[in-house]
Amino acid sequence: MRYIAPVDEVIAGLRACTSLYRQPSDLDVDVTQAILEEAGAFAQDTLFPLDSTMDDEGASFRDGQVKTASGHREAYQLFCDGGWMGLSAPEEQGGHALPQTVMAACQEFWHAGSLAFAMGNLLTIGAIETLNRHASASLRKDYLPKLVSGEWAATMALTEPGAGSDLSTVNTRAQPDDSGRYLVRGNKIFISYGEHDLTQNIVHLVLARLPEAPQGSRGLSLFLVPKLVPADSGSLVDNQVRCTGIEHKLGQHGSPTCSLSFGTGEGSVGWLVGEPNRGLQAMFTMMNSARLAVAMQGVGVAERSTQAAAIYAMERTQGIDAKTGKPLPISKHPDMQRMLMTMRASTTMARLLALSTADAIDRAHSASSEAARSSAQVQADILTPIAKSYCTQTGIDTADLAIQVHGGMGYVEETGVARLWRDVRVTSIYEGTNGIQAIDLLTRKISGARAEAFQEMLDEHEKALKGTTIDNTIVASLQRSLQLLRDAATSVSDVLPRAPEQALSVATPFLKLCALALGASMVARLLTIDDDQSSRARTTELLGFITRFIIPETAGLASLIEGVLEDNRAERETNGGVRLVQ
Amino acid sequence: MRYIAPVDEVIAGLRACTSLYRQPSDLDVDVTQAILEEAGAFAQDTLFPLDSTMDDEGASFRDGQVKTASGHREAYQLFCDGGWMGLSAPEEQGGHALPQTVMAACQEFWHAGSLAFAMGNLLTIGAIETLNRHASASLRKDYLPKLVSGEWAATMALTEPGAGSDLSTVNTRAQPDDSGRYLVRGNKIFISYGEHDLTQNIVHLVLARLPEAPQGSRGLSLFLVPKLVPADSGSLVDNQVRCTGIEHKLGQHGSPTCSLSFGTGEGSVGWLVGEPNRGLQAMFTMMNSARLAVAMQGVGVAERSTQAAAIYAMERTQGIDAKTGKPLPISKHPDMQRMLMTMRASTTMARLLALSTADAIDRAHSASSEAARSSAQVQADILTPIAKSYCTQTGIDTADLAIQVHGGMGYVEETGVARLWRDVRVTSIYEGTNGIQAIDLLTRKISGARAEAFQEMLDEHEKALKGTTIDNTIVASLQRSLQLLRDAATSVSDVLPRAPEQALSVATPFLKLCALALGASMVARLLTIDDDQSSRARTTELLGFITRFIIPETAGLASLIEGVLEDNRAERETNGGVRLVQ
Repeated sequence: MRYIAPVDEVIAGLRACTSLYRQPSDLDVDVTQAILEEAGAFAQDTLFPLDSTMDDEGASFRDGQVKTASGHREAYQLFCDGGWMGLSAPEEQGGHALPQTVMAACQEFWHAGSLAFAMGNLLTIGAIETLNRHASASLRKDYLPKLVSGEWAATMALTEPGAGSDLSTVNTRAQPDDSGRYLVRGNKIFISYGEHDLTQNIVHLVLARLPEAPQGSRGLSLFLVPKLVPADSGSLVDNQVRCTGIEHKLGQHGSPTCSLSFGTGEGSVGWLVGEPNRGLQAMFTMMNSARLAVAMQGVGVAERSTQAAAIYAMERTQGIDAKTGKPLPISKHPDMQRMLMTMRASTTMARLLALSTADAIDRAHSASSEAARSSAQVQADILTPIAKSYCTQTGIDTADLAIQVHGGMGYVEETGVARLWRDVRVTSIYEGTNGIQAIDLLTRKISGARAEAFQEMLDEHEKALKGTTIDNTIVASLQRSLQLLRDAATSVSDVLPRAPEQALSVATPFLKLCALALGASMVARLLTIDDDQSSRARTTELLGFITRFIIPETAGLASLIEGVLEDNRAERETNGGVRLVQ
Repeated sequence: MRYIAPVDEVIAGLRACTSLYRQPSDLDVDVTQAILEEAGAFAQDTLFPLDSTMDDEGASFRDGQVKTASGHREAYQLFCDGGWMGLSAPEEQGGHALPQTVMAACQEFWHAGSLAFAMGNLLTIGAIETLNRHASASLRKDYLPKLVSGEWAATMALTEPGAGSDLSTVNTRAQPDDSGRYLVRGNKIFISYGEHDLTQNIVHLVLARLPEAPQGSRGLSLFLVPKLVPADSGSLVDNQVRCTGIEHKLGQHGSPTCSLSFGTGEGSVGWLVGEPNRGLQAMFTMMNSARLAVAMQGVGVAERSTQAAAIYAMERTQGIDAKTGKPLPISKHPDMQRMLMTMRASTTMARLLALSTADAIDRAHSASSEAARSSAQVQADILTPIAKSYCTQTGIDTADLAIQVHGGMGYVEETGVARLWRDVRVTSIYEGTNGIQAIDLLTRKISGARAEAFQEMLDEHEKALKGTTIDNTIVASLQRSLQLLRDAATSVSDVLPRAPEQALSVATPFLKLCALALGASMVARLLTIDDDQSSRARTTELLGFITRFIIPETAGLASLIEGVLEDNRAERETNGGVRLVQ
């Protein structure tokens, strides 16, 4: 197996589906190309060879300490030396202040190189953004330069036993002391990179409750709780944060998933980030950043799986070519071509969706007018759950197809494609399960006040399609799927207030319909920038495949949605819940 | 996690979708119920607790020997003592001569209990059938009683490096000696249970070439090659069969997948089974038996995954019930219900398809007239690839959904659902990949002379639907999907001779359309036998779900198939193959 960072495809995606090169900045294609090539080289040369060692050895736990796999520390150091952790951090903190689109593009490569490795950095990068947005000047001064340089790492400490998708039952407590600080006590689970030997210090962003805080999620506050507290003397003081174990997981063995105890004595010292009882809002900054990064995990694994399958299928022969009498590579078999093209098509659609999401986030920060920023924010809100779900599911499906293309060899661990599936499988679970993304999209992003913004986004897509020079049949097919989506969105937002259970039962099919209709329409935009004939031919072929093999699913999804919503018998209500097992 | 063998559901399936109780035999529901309950108890009490040990310890290889996990031998002995290996073997060999439908039903339970365990027996059971059908009287006398008792085990040794799906390049050689025996030399890979410590002897059924045999698959002969040759003295003599290693696999760690060397000296002694150069035909008996058994692996894992997810979803709470103010089990969330019902629906469809396949095989052997037997054989031929593919894919998809329902806990190995996915993942690869099943269905089972038989099968399904007392909307929806299938089959067999590549590119979607339309229609048959009101209500609810959430996919698949086949531009031909990667 090998992996080549698809720099040209990503640049094409940035040109076609983002405003990166239409912004008044000094970024042009040459500059981003150079950055992406370097990020890609790091993924290919350092991370890719490390990935199997990280899986084989895994992170190990002993006496409260976590030891990372051989080579992990050295690779981490190279990552920091490259300045990658601060790619989108402010320059005064040592960062490069590059847009999210560029960061997202680089993340695709790193996750493709080694998901278990890049997972750790994703959290530090998200924490940098969160602290910049919500922390006090003094916290920012004390912590951000060390996080941006990678000297210290960060985590996101939300989950507790019993509080997974529903954070309202978080039970960790924070007691104010006399000096404006807090003493934090509680237990957290499933904390990625909660403890490790990569950095001297680890900065935990912890959801906890103040005394007399309201119940539920409105009583949660966010605290910065370092593993070691920097003292005025410059020394670091133990802060009673203990790792009590790491999980034995299906994949990502190299990424330690920790149980943490905060405040094993009188309490771990913490500082409030943002307003009291507004912790969830502050944490959402980190989660949205993490959701886009997790989408890139999906895209990265999808690309690597697609490459692995394509190479194997061209090398492996089965059967004889009737015309030449020579052994026939399995890539020539039509059913195999269907699988390989499905992988290529969905990877491309996923990438374009994710880059568009990053672009909306960029525009929400930097567009020239308040109106443009606010409209971009709405787009970012709509696209984030779609990108998170579709990209991760594509990562999983594509790794699964890579196993299938490899046949029996795919089931043997040494081949490496089974590892890709094991590693990527959790991406549809963490940072909000894909089901929760679908519910978020349906209940908060496309109905009520947002319904109009959603329809406007579809208008833009339809307009963009008219600007392309594609075969009319293909345009018609893409437009039809956008119309199906438009109608489904209307039905869903219509039914939601009256029969929420019914509407929610089609949340996942609806999200998929969004992803397929929007993703396919974005692929068409590649034709607006394809300058050379061969990449134009490739895109045209891909679009033909998408129209024939993927778009038909949109009709099935739309008919499912309309069918369920039309059904006014509301069996669930009268039945007292669907019976699940006998 | 726990597992309860679904004896009642299986009996209902046997009553509704097979002719088991309409045959002139002494089998009635009470007898089969007693057998199934015992088989289920063995799965629940012996195999289920063993499954995680088999995964953790795995089978290990050292110096040519394979050691199975702790408890494996004892469970194997109990399996043999129960007489299960000979369930469908002739009575004169120590078997119970029960139909394939009963065997298939029992296999579901054993595979659910432990796929890695039951995998071994599947091969011995297939070998018993193959030898009974093709071996000489003397071989049958020497080997069958020991195989039926389980004292000896068997394997299927087909695959070689480079000869996987395409067996025509098999290179193992068999040289006749003077005594009517053969000396076999060659290397085989991916041989499940090729070496182990469960039995004193292992009987390999080996595909090899006679001297001057034609090239390709018409030059293959089947040989019986024991690990140890029984001498007249009663002693067992080493036969130069060596295990050179076992695979490090994604799952089924307890099932050793071996590389074998035959004839490390002058040659391993073997006996011809069936006619010279007709080895593939003889092996097809074993492969068809194995395909049905592998379908049952899918059904077993699907059922176990569905149960695991349902139990977890009813116990795990997230959020608050708005009406009662109490914690809400996740099973009450509509998106979760969609997942759980999808699992239940597809498991039921898979089971009914597989039991119908077993029934067609039974009728092909024992129906009263030659015409009935021959028509049943055609049905068995049609249904086998559909059942193999759909049941295994359902096993995989259902295990995948079980991980998703468990959320973060699903990614932790101790929970056990990730293991189900790892174990079942290979079932869509071995015994003919699911892609090959789809090609087999399309090129050999529904076109040409078989086209009429296929349409007749659809007639039967439509007739059966008219006999049910279901809601008219549901009947109409099921009939519509059968009509879509009918039309698609006509299009496919029409296009196949003219544009085989185009037809083959829809082989997999076409197989899925078959499975969904036929499977859903079989669920409706359960209503013809549901006596008590609660199981009737459950079936009605399941059918409602299938109509709303699963049947819409048939429209998408049909439209994909018709779209691709209508497309006469034949881009592939003019292009010289679809371009797969840049």
